[in-house]
Amino acid sequence: MPEDEEFNVTPWSVTGKVDYTKLMEKFGTQPIDLSLTSRIQEITGSEPHFMLRRGIFFTHRDLGWLLDQYASGNPFYLYTGRGPSDHTHIGHLVPWIFTRWLQEKFHVKLIFQLTDDEKFLFNDNLDLEKTHSLALDNALDIISLGFSEKDTEILIDSDNASILYPNALKIAKKITLSTVRASFGFEMDANIGMAFYTSIQAVPAVLESIRLGHNIPCLIPYGIDQDPHFRIARDVLPKLGYLKPASIMSIFIPPLSGVEGKMSSSDPNYAIFVTDSENTVRKKINKYAFSGGKTSVEEHKKFGGDPDIDVSYQWLRIMFEPDDTKLKKIREDYISGSLLSGELKAILIERVNKFLKRHQELREKAKDRLHLYLTSSHK
Amino acid sequence: MPEDEEFNVTPWSVTGKVDYTKLMEKFGTQPIDLSLTSRIQEITGSEPHFMLRRGIFFTHRDLGWLLDQYASGNPFYLYTGRGPSDHTHIGHLVPWIFTRWLQEKFHVKLIFQLTDDEKFLFNDNLDLEKTHSLALDNALDIISLGFSEKDTEILIDSDNASILYPNALKIAKKITLSTVRASFGFEMDANIGMAFYTSIQAVPAVLESIRLGHNIPCLIPYGIDQDPHFRIARDVLPKLGYLKPASIMSIFIPPLSGVEGKMSSSDPNYAIFVTDSENTVRKKINKYAFSGGKTSVEEHKKFGGDPDIDVSYQWLRIMFEPDDTKLKKIREDYISGSLLSGELKAILIERVNKFLKRHQELREKAKDRLHLYLTSSHK
Repeated sequence: MPEDEEFNVTPWSVTGKVDYTKLMEKFGTQPIDLSLTSRIQEITGSEPHFMLRRGIFFTHRDLGWLLDQYASGNPFYLYTGRGPSDHTHIGHLVPWIFTRWLQEKFHVKLIFQLTDDEKFLFNDNLDLEKTHSLALDNALDIISLGFSEKDTEILIDSDNASILYPNALKIAKKITLSTVRASFGFEMDANIGMAFYTSIQAVPAVLESIRLGHNIPCLIPYGIDQDPHFRIARDVLPKLGYLKPASIMSIFIPPLSGVEGKMSSSDPNYAIFVTDSENTVRKKINKYAFSGGKTSVEEHKKFGGDPDIDVSYQWLRIMFEPDDTKLKKIREDYISGSLLSGELKAILIERVNKFLKRHQELREKAKDRLHLYLTSSHK
Repeated sequence: MPEDEEFNVTPWSVTGKVDYTKLMEKFGTQPIDLSLTSRIQEITGSEPHFMLRRGIFFTHRDLGWLLDQYASGNPFYLYTGRGPSDHTHIGHLVPWIFTRWLQEKFHVKLIFQLTDDEKFLFNDNLDLEKTHSLALDNALDIISLGFSEKDTEILIDSDNASILYPNALKIAKKITLSTVRASFGFEMDANIGMAFYTSIQAVPAVLESIRLGHNIPCLIPYGIDQDPHFRIARDVLPKLGYLKPASIMSIFIPPLSGVEGKMSSSDPNYAIFVTDSENTVRKKINKYAFSGGKTSVEEHKKFGGDPDIDVSYQWLRIMFEPDDTKLKKIREDYISGSLLSGELKAILIERVNKFLKRHQELREKAKDRLHLYLTSSHK
């Protein structure tokens, strides 16, 4: 992290306590305000998803334009992705759950890119066979979230080079080494695959336009750390005659250790994986979840806890308590001191385990349906 | 061209009068000596090709090792390539004719890579559709030279990304931006596709090993300007468990304008294209072929001409007069002054047009057989 900054966000690491207002300014994105969420409600006829209401998805580019297009009969498609470097953890699920809601409410197609090439190129310890097998593994978690079989295409990069590479070439020709160095902070010891890679990540943003033979808008939901890729894509794609993709970006789900950085597989104690057992979840949360409570029960009851730095509360807010009324009561009880840290953790443990029990069942069932989602079967 | 050098050789341009001895030193390659040509004669039972006898193919890496392997029952395969930026000219045919001879004498497989991706990435004025269609066009010239249908695979990059890209990733991971900057002289305004490209050109050097599941030696014949690519490949491939490819490299066929640089499509007056008419060939050679003769017939008869700077003589030596005795007589007559420049040009014109007449007929017939050579039909 540069010394003059309190936080640093790149596609490969997030450090420090992220100031999302500053990040919007730095990246040049727009806040999602009430007029936009109202417009979504008006078009979909549904209450905006709690992740919108609570600012989990907090910023965007061209979302108003996209909604106007949709309302006037020009639909869009969704594109999101995942770099398969390990098993899925619950931090990954946040944008996926929201993306699934968007698909359901707008009745649109989704391309889900699994970038096994990226994770291979950027990790010394992973070979391509491993990242490819992780892509197939992670795909099960995507399917388990209920994405429409008919409208969802899971595209694994190394399996679909015949689609990706020729189109990536056209994008790559418009991107200089200077640009990727400035955008991603590469030094000259970066490998040449890393430099080329962003052009592969740009392809799904125009793939439906290529297939249809005419431009169709694209909306990309993603964690804000992926923004450098899509800033470049928005700069380059119009030069090739395509539309700029619109985007909607989320904050990060914090690790158990505290509300700094983002949950990461490289700190497995501080992440909950979708494959974790009930017991593991209980132990991790009880042992590691940073608490905003006081050090003794007496003090806590007297002065109350701070939900804004309490990871258990934040996880409920970001993902595990969709009901605003219930969340509000938890918050108030915690602040007042009537809800103890241990009790708050118990609520979270119950929610996480309930979610994972169902997810793990669906994940088993997804194995037989995987082939129905993969690009190779689609085309 | 750097000011302190008399010539400069990169995969994209050759300038100045090339000193091939200096180039061998600079690139670290070995000369082809009599012991090597004798060994080839011994193994193949054929007189070495005139391009070997005359030093047109003049340098190599690990050719002795490759021949030893072959003699002890471990065969190799051939790999060469072409960047399809225009119609084929006769300068391109020199290494192809020699490669065909190698295939015939050693009875080995050839992978011929057509790098339409490269030519797209490196040329502002070419789109990928154009370089792809030129790849198909150039393939006809390859087929016309008589390569064995059974043992020859023509691999067009943009059609075969599913083979090339996943393997190129593994190579790319081992090559830094510093390496390609130093090897190819890229500046930071180079596009990211240019930086990545060398990993694509390395794949055919190991593709047969990948397919067979065990290492098989590879011999790459090429014009010496491609050497930076294969120096990198030889450095990287052993790190991935592959053999270093062996190589055999040719000098350049000079443009009509004189024995500097190399024949190039970008100076079409100074190149003979395989599609040129009899009349065009006659006009180009008569008008542009740099002569080593004297300015008047009288002077020429008195002092004689210089074959070493005479392009017509050089073209006969490099490609169009396989018979050493006939070539020697032409050389002696020219030096003595009994053979005039116009007469020398007439010999060349007759040879070139005879070659092209047959080539153009074969080229027409090759159209129906193209599909038999393309990788997509092979695999």
